[in-house]
Amino acid sequence: MSTRARNTPLSLVAQPGIRVLTYGTFDLFHIGHLRLLERLRALGDHLTVAVSTDEFNARKGKQAFIPFRDRLDIVSSLRCVDAVIAEHDWAQKREDIRRLGIDVFGMGDDWVGKFDELSDIARVVYLERTPDISSSAIKQSLRAHAPDGAVATSLPTPLARAS
Amino acid sequence: MSTRARNTPLSLVAQPGIRVLTYGTFDLFHIGHLRLLERLRALGDHLTVAVSTDEFNARKGKQAFIPFRDRLDIVSSLRCVDAVIAEHDWAQKREDIRRLGIDVFGMGDDWVGKFDELSDIARVVYLERTPDISSSAIKQSLRAHAPDGAVATSLPTPLARAS
Repeated sequence: MSTRARNTPLSLVAQPGIRVLTYGTFDLFHIGHLRLLERLRALGDHLTVAVSTDEFNARKGKQAFIPFRDRLDIVSSLRCVDAVIAEHDWAQKREDIRRLGIDVFGMGDDWVGKFDELSDIARVVYLERTPDISSSAIKQSLRAHAPDGAVATSLPTPLARAS
Repeated sequence: MSTRARNTPLSLVAQPGIRVLTYGTFDLFHIGHLRLLERLRALGDHLTVAVSTDEFNARKGKQAFIPFRDRLDIVSSLRCVDAVIAEHDWAQKREDIRRLGIDVFGMGDDWVGKFDELSDIARVVYLERTPDISSSAIKQSLRAHAPDGAVATSLPTPLARAS
């Protein structure tokens, strides 16, 4: 064993690295969600995703189509996601950032400017969303089409985009 | 270093283990897909998922709502999935099993008995599906509900199940 090797102990604890945090409902999980989460993960070494509970959505006047537990389990099954937590309240973000040692707070660019107030404790970034796809677009497009589920490929539907 | 340690070389090549293969469209990715894939992966050490192309679905008279490329990318982003391939044709299964060195061919139990002919070259299993959820059920339920996407939780809709 060389002197160099003896003097270079293996680290048994992972280096802390850059920790990223985001929030969302992730209803009807789609490629736009995945692309955003993968790009957020690429900003650091660890990605925590906070998934809105059904109760919190109800307080916001929203209702996800897929129950919270299923949305949480799908997000946590992704290779690019290191941890998941529940989002119960608007006010928890600042506490989450401190508690989880977050370096980067990232959201889709539909939220530009909305979380700048957190920039005193984290780097706040807004990433471009995948064009023409969202949970709402999927719901609207499904409702607009024939009962057999067919989507006419010649129609300019949200999901007939190039991919 | 003990004699035992010297005589026990570290394997630098992963043991081959049990390789599992399944097929599907995975339209509107949902918790039933995830549960099935996780349970298939648990049958072995490596899971390959064959995702039906849009052209193949068209030949079957089906049309997925989500384009092939997006369905493929979502499935391949899962921690429980080790590899993805495209499904182009009914006849490819036997060749895939041989080419990929598959030990277990697994499908949901909506296919019971349909692939028993492959049992001469692989163990064929049919796993119970998650009750009350499917891509078709999601589409039907979305179409049946109000334009704002709300699902009345008191209704016996496919997605109002316990989770």
